[in-house]
Amino acid sequence: MAKQISELKLGILGGGQLGRMLIQEAINYNLTTLVLDPDPDAPCKHIANKFECGSITDFDTVYNFGKKADIITIEIEKVNIEALEALEKEGKLVFPQSRVIRLIQDKGVQKQFFKENDIPTAPFQLVSSKNDLSNGNFSFPYILKQRKDGYDGKGVMKINNLADVDHAFESPSLIEELIDFDKEIAVIVARNANGDMKTFPMVEMEFNAEANLVEFLISPSTYPEDLQDKADKIALNIASALNITGILAVEMFVTRDGDILVNELAPRPHNSGHQTIEGNYVSQFEQHLRAIFNLPLGDTRSINNAIMINLLGEKGHDGLARYENLEKVMGIDGVYIHLYGKKYTKPFRKMGHVTIVDQNREKAIEKARYVQHTLKVVS
Amino acid sequence: MAKQISELKLGILGGGQLGRMLIQEAINYNLTTLVLDPDPDAPCKHIANKFECGSITDFDTVYNFGKKADIITIEIEKVNIEALEALEKEGKLVFPQSRVIRLIQDKGVQKQFFKENDIPTAPFQLVSSKNDLSNGNFSFPYILKQRKDGYDGKGVMKINNLADVDHAFESPSLIEELIDFDKEIAVIVARNANGDMKTFPMVEMEFNAEANLVEFLISPSTYPEDLQDKADKIALNIASALNITGILAVEMFVTRDGDILVNELAPRPHNSGHQTIEGNYVSQFEQHLRAIFNLPLGDTRSINNAIMINLLGEKGHDGLARYENLEKVMGIDGVYIHLYGKKYTKPFRKMGHVTIVDQNREKAIEKARYVQHTLKVVS
Repeated sequence: MAKQISELKLGILGGGQLGRMLIQEAINYNLTTLVLDPDPDAPCKHIANKFECGSITDFDTVYNFGKKADIITIEIEKVNIEALEALEKEGKLVFPQSRVIRLIQDKGVQKQFFKENDIPTAPFQLVSSKNDLSNGNFSFPYILKQRKDGYDGKGVMKINNLADVDHAFESPSLIEELIDFDKEIAVIVARNANGDMKTFPMVEMEFNAEANLVEFLISPSTYPEDLQDKADKIALNIASALNITGILAVEMFVTRDGDILVNELAPRPHNSGHQTIEGNYVSQFEQHLRAIFNLPLGDTRSINNAIMINLLGEKGHDGLARYENLEKVMGIDGVYIHLYGKKYTKPFRKMGHVTIVDQNREKAIEKARYVQHTLKVVS
Repeated sequence: MAKQISELKLGILGGGQLGRMLIQEAINYNLTTLVLDPDPDAPCKHIANKFECGSITDFDTVYNFGKKADIITIEIEKVNIEALEALEKEGKLVFPQSRVIRLIQDKGVQKQFFKENDIPTAPFQLVSSKNDLSNGNFSFPYILKQRKDGYDGKGVMKINNLADVDHAFESPSLIEELIDFDKEIAVIVARNANGDMKTFPMVEMEFNAEANLVEFLISPSTYPEDLQDKADKIALNIASALNITGILAVEMFVTRDGDILVNELAPRPHNSGHQTIEGNYVSQFEQHLRAIFNLPLGDTRSINNAIMINLLGEKGHDGLARYENLEKVMGIDGVYIHLYGKKYTKPFRKMGHVTIVDQNREKAIEKARYVQHTLKVVS
């Protein structure tokens, strides 16, 4: 008799907030969770069945950790791929597959994948070092992205002129045409091993320019239906072309001309899907579990308008975290607090998020603006 | 500066499913949870910050456990009250208060409290042993209830005739007139230390006659509004009269004449509120946290029709639990699985619950009936 989800062990590489929210859903299925993270106080520490402190980029550590699990997943892409390949060869289930993580880890390979599969994306060129830039025939301004290890705005810069080139990355990078976009949007798609796929309704994002983090997200979008359908189809095409098992966040731009261009992918639960916990019938975290355990995918429809705001550490505050005006915002109906179990705050650190739900979209936005200006993470 | 919820330690007496679901909500507030339970494999074991295996009825164990927490709560009434009183005297916050737990622990005292406070309840009489019964002037049939330690149908029997009296309890009990009721209903009310109160919409229950457990619960009720208002007022009156801090479940009967009679109270999250997790804007578990930490109470409105069914161990199955047809029911939209982390099943053991949510009430009921007949806990 095949083992069922309540009898299996899920190994999670990374013990941050994404792992934490995944475990919060896993509890309902009696799933045994093992977590590997280098931070001895990682957000998952106290809620995983077993928490192991160790490197997620070291072959031996990842390999030995993976041996103890039945299924292995990730909450961050920067993991040791060779260890995952070795585990797959021995018959362990790794979802998303090591092949998919390897492709997405490298933004250059990701862009080439878009090109080869007719996925609309901004024109780009690979560069191997900053020397290429000064000799190049690229017209300013453009975007320079490190191919590997960039996250939350790190590893991305705008190059306006030759002087900026001096400060450019030395590592393999890519340059991309600067897109004059109307808004950033995202569609999260899930695919299980049976090949069933489901997308969540498209969402709109606003970024904090200074921190370059998603700061304000609204679901569902109010773009015309045909544009939403287009975004939906792109996400489905990518998931199919990748043959991914698991959840995939597809970040896109809507250009001023109404075109959609894919920005980048994340093969795991993503910041652009946090509002699904309260805003949709199934959350992105539960959907990821359903996908990797090859269970029927859940109902992705929106229940309500939902706004998500990230709770970032205030500038000038470094130390034991306190949540200023927490009580005040908890007095507003439809405000859901999610703190990530991080003891210490620092400027722009993601300390939690808040989802604001209301049947009236304008009211939801109004409440969200209030929460954004009221609730502060200080030390 | 007063400490806030993310800096406090909550001690929970009892580590069963109610504690587990309470912790699932507490995670979002970075609350540190300490749990005491005699079962080394209690459902809370892996998700509490600290799990302690020990007796919840032993003075020293409860007292020493309570010393480590800032606020102490319960998930079961059968705890050592003297230890809680000692902790309160030393300035620890115990919510619900030891005084309230003591009153509710004894169904005889509970009934007297109803009488003194003009709370409608079935006529009753206290009896000190079964001798009282044979000499009594009570007309058959009637209900006999042990004053202490009854739960989930244990400690309750119907006495039809003198022969039944032979099998009656020897311990202090009460007899109650047999109520010819239309339905059992419940209202959950929360009260914080500020005295703010909020009720959840009234729900209707169906019992499994054999196991005497709630088996099927529907929210919200479709009784006329004036009857719902009456039930709501009764719950508020009881919470006020008790001066309780925390959540209180008020179980009631609707008689064939349309009267409401209070059956009994539970000063903690209760089986009749599990559907609030998905069915209402705030869940009973989060509301209990809000109440005991003196935070603003959440929005109790229903989002959707929600049916809750308990997942009881099948008759004839004793051993490692398996969930038959889990995948099948997960394929239905709006079906939410909650397994309680219990490794072993036995007949009628509460192994989990399922909530079924649908905008159409009839559809929700139809789906719930299907789940009830399809999903089985076997060994």
